[in-house]
This record gives sequence, C-alpha cells and structure tokens, in this order.
Amino acid sequence: MTSASINQWLGAEIYFKCEHLQKVGAFKARGAANAVLQLPAGTEMVATHSSGNHGAALAWAAAERGIRCTVVMPDNAPEAKKAAVAAYGADIIYCAPTLAAREGALAELVAKTGAHVVPPFDDAHIIAGQGTVAQEIVGQCRERGFCPDLVVAPVGGGGLLAGIALAISAMAPDIKVLGAEPAGADDAQRSLRSGVRVTEQVPETIADGLRTTLGVRNFAVIREHVNDIVTVSEAGIRLALALLWHRTKQLVEPSAAVGLASVIEHGARFRNKRVVVVLSGGNMDLAAVAGLLTDPENDQ
Amino acid sequence: MTSASINQWLGAEIYFKCEHLQKVGAFKARGAANAVLQLPAGTEMVATHSSGNHGAALAWAAAERGIRCTVVMPDNAPEAKKAAVAAYGADIIYCAPTLAAREGALAELVAKTGAHVVPPFDDAHIIAGQGTVAQEIVGQCRERGFCPDLVVAPVGGGGLLAGIALAISAMAPDIKVLGAEPAGADDAQRSLRSGVRVTEQVPETIADGLRTTLGVRNFAVIREHVNDIVTVSEAGIRLALALLWHRTKQLVEPSAAVGLASVIEHGARFRNKRVVVVLSGGNMDLAAVAGLLTDPENDQ
Repeated sequence: MTSASINQWLGAEIYFKCEHLQKVGAFKARGAANAVLQLPAGTEMVATHSSGNHGAALAWAAAERGIRCTVVMPDNAPEAKKAAVAAYGADIIYCAPTLAAREGALAELVAKTGAHVVPPFDDAHIIAGQGTVAQEIVGQCRERGFCPDLVVAPVGGGGLLAGIALAISAMAPDIKVLGAEPAGADDAQRSLRSGVRVTEQVPETIADGLRTTLGVRNFAVIREHVNDIVTVSEAGIRLALALLWHRTKQLVEPSAAVGLASVIEHGARFRNKRVVVVLSGGNMDLAAVAGLLTDPENDQ
Repeated sequence: MTSASINQWLGAEIYFKCEHLQKVGAFKARGAANAVLQLPAGTEMVATHSSGNHGAALAWAAAERGIRCTVVMPDNAPEAKKAAVAAYGADIIYCAPTLAAREGALAELVAKTGAHVVPPFDDAHIIAGQGTVAQEIVGQCRERGFCPDLVVAPVGGGGLLAGIALAISAMAPDIKVLGAEPAGADDAQRSLRSGVRVTEQVPETIADGLRTTLGVRNFAVIREHVNDIVTVSEAGIRLALALLWHRTKQLVEPSAAVGLASVIEHGARFRNKRVVVVLSGGNMDLAAVAGLLTDPENDQ
C-alpha cells in the first residue's frame, strides 16, 4: 500500500508491506507455519508459552497441519489473545504472569506429553519463516519494476528483522536493512553498538510487541546483516499510528507504527528514497485503541 | 478483501470492495471526478455545499483538473472535513448550519462568480461516476473467474446505489443489487415500498453519511433497477463495524458497515451466496471512533 499524502509530507516513496493483513493478523504466522512444516513426520503435539501473537500463530499453524497445540499463557494475558488461541482450537494452560512460572508450566507439559516446543523468535526455523516477508517484498517490487533502497522493520525479539536481513542478503544485497525500535526498549540498538547482547531492560513503550529482548541467534544474524538500528520516541510512534489510521485506514497496532515513526524522526536517511516499511501486525484490544485516541498526550 | 472468519461465521462468501481506500477516502471521488471531467472546456470554477465527503471529493477533482473550487460549509462541520477541503486547495465559505443558509450562500456565490454547481448525488454525472465502482466489481470478479450473486451497497442520497444499479443492469443483469440503510434513516425503503419518494425524515443513526434523503433522479433509477432495500439496526451497524475493524483491520466509517450489517441481520438472503459488500468510506474523526468504542451500548 502507498499513501500519496504521507509520501508528500515525508519526501520519500514509501511502500507499506501489510503484515496486519496476514493470517492471525501478524507476521508471526510465517515463522509458526515454517516451524510446524519443518517438524518430523509423526509429531503429534506442539507447545509454547506466549502472552501475545506467537501463541495464536502457533495454534493456527498447528491446526492447519492437523496436530495438537497447547499454549501456556499468563492468566493476565489480554482476553482477545486468549480468545484467538482458543478459536484456533489450541488448549490453554494458565499460569502466574512471571517468566519462571511460564517456563515451569511449559517444562512440566513437555515432560508429561513430549510436546515439541516452538519458541517465539530465538529459533532458526522461526527466523527463516519470518524472512519470507522479505522474499515477497523483493518479488513484489521487481514485479512493479523497481528495487527499494531500504527495508525498515520493527525489532523486539528480532525474529522478523533477522529473517528479513538474511533473505535480503541472499536475494538483493544492495537493499539496506534497518531495524527500528522504541527508545524506551532500545536493547537492540545498544546490543548492536556495544557488540554485546543486552539482556536486561525495563521497557517503557506503548509498542507492546517490542518489549522483549533480542534473542541469541537473532543478535548474531542482525550483527552481520543489518545496516543499522534506529530508535524512535513515544510521540513519534503515536504520530505514525495516527497517520496510518487516518491516511491509510489501516488499523495497525502500535508496534507496527515504529517503522513509519523512524521515517518521521530520521528524515535525512530516507529523503527521496524508496522505502519499504513493514507493518508488522494489527492485533490490539479495541479498548486499548480507544485509550490511545483519548489520551491527551496524543494531541499531535 | 476477504475474511475467512467472517465468511465462516456468516455462511456466505463475502468480497469487500474497498472504497475507503479510494482517493479522498470514499467513493465520492468517483462521482466528483466524472462531474468535473464532463465540464465544458473553459470552465474556471466549480462550487458546492457540503458538510461531508462530497466537498473534499470535489475539491480534489477540481485540483486534479486545475480549476478553482469553492465549498460552502456549515460552520459546525467536523474539523477533519474542513481540513480535508482546505488541503486540496479549495476555498471555503462558512455559513450557518441550516439547509437554507447553505443554499443561500451557494446561490450568492454562483450569482457573483458564475461557478458551476456540482450537487452531491441528485445528478446524472455523479450517478454515472459512482457507477464505475460496479464496473470495477464486475471486472475484478471476472478476472478471478466468478460472478457474484449479489452486490450490497449503503443508500443515503442514493448516488452510489443508483450508479451501481445502472452499471450492473448494463453489464451483468443477473447480479442482484441490494440497498442497505439504517432503520433510523429508512426513507429509501419506504420510498421503494410506497412508490412515492419520502422527503421528510428525522434520521437517527450513527451512520452519519446515510442521514440524507433520496434524490429525485436516484429514486427513479433505484425503483427501476434495484432488487430490494433492507434496513439494519444500530446494534447491527456497531457489530459489523467492530467485525470489520477486528477481522479485516480496515478502519471504515459507520456508514460503510451497513452492508455487512445487512448480511448479519438478513442472513437467509445471503446464505451460501457470493456477496460483494461495498465499504463506502473511511473518513471519521478519531475522537468519534474512540466514542463508539467506549460506548457501553457497544458490548456485543
């Protein structure tokens, strides 16, 4: 998708890759589908712990292949996420909302059932699956007779960004790959700049999908193949979100607005360039949308 | 666009025609473009009165052809609509928020400037222009190898519905054309059933684009070429709106949800059918969105 008014305002040629229109409403469907398709024949059950889109994506992918799926969810997970996982036919085990409780419940389930664990991002099959979005980007741009200068994607755990970087380096290494993250969850930028993976942070951002810290495999790929990681302010994310809703009529979630926020806040890097901005997902509680819209800080 | 979950829930094969992604965010761009393109060479100026999308559409179409445009707007028109008209370079004359004041200001302007008046719906060129959406629908369905059973479109002044009905009757008369309107603004249904155009109503609906009464030319076309008009409840409109936002991630306005609401509330007419639902526009104040979302009556 494109928006003439956004392009004119920002002085760049922006192409939105619409992963909020993907199955389960987020790019996560790609990694989960690949992970499930790579399972050895005869695998009967997969499992994961998740409070977000990965649980729904795995539930969907498992259902498509006809195998059972159990998702360990913290009991304070949003109702919409619980409903999505249940709607795809997965079983849910609720636990206390701590990482220890989630990992404990998952380990117990695996010991009892032998379920195959599919992690959310720090996994080669997941990274490869997310990378299919870049294969599509390169193919779709070629069909339209051009090659983008840059691809910008949000970075949380790093599955999406690492997958994109790998695919671009293999298919079209002239395209620069840029990660974008909230300044309030900037572990990826700090990791890239220091050369040491930052594992502790206290994230403060409305982009709830980007609060996780970078995975080990993800960091290794990103160090090698990503050109840079930029950070954006919360005001920038809100402005980008409002622009996307107003101008493109696409109800994307805050995490998905981080790429456009980086074009707004780091304009010089993008001026007169052809930029693909990955809109990573569109899953959020409508009540949360209302909260963002009525927040007085949102008077941009 | 399609949604597997909506199709499964409603037992129909629904194709959304996305006029909220049209220029100016609504089908109104079609009629305005045609009206402006049909002007005699040498026309220097167009004008209209509008509190909604028609003003922005005419401003856009006039700017595209390089002629001047003035829009008479009630001073209580939404800020977003005023901003849209101004952004397309049109002049705005503000007046009191009554039909008499609007018509008076427009007449005065025409007497002074000789501007060509482009009405919002009761006009042959406008109707023909809106009808191009049905040409596209038929063409796009044929490309995909099928013919829809029904096309459902919202009806306010009747420009869109009349245009669709004319185009379908000329191109693919086997397709049924159905109008959908809020029960709280049911003048079109009453007009069709009584055979006499209802000109007075006190509309009560959140679908603000559908509060106008049917035009003379529009009624004549609709009587001849539209199969039926159904009404939907406010609860149905809210439910359809929430479904569209949740499931398709498309930020359409309440008026655009009336077609899907009719599939929800008149299920038997649509069961196992291929139905094209026209999403007519996506222009609304974000504050209004927030209001709809936080309204306790919206607990579907």
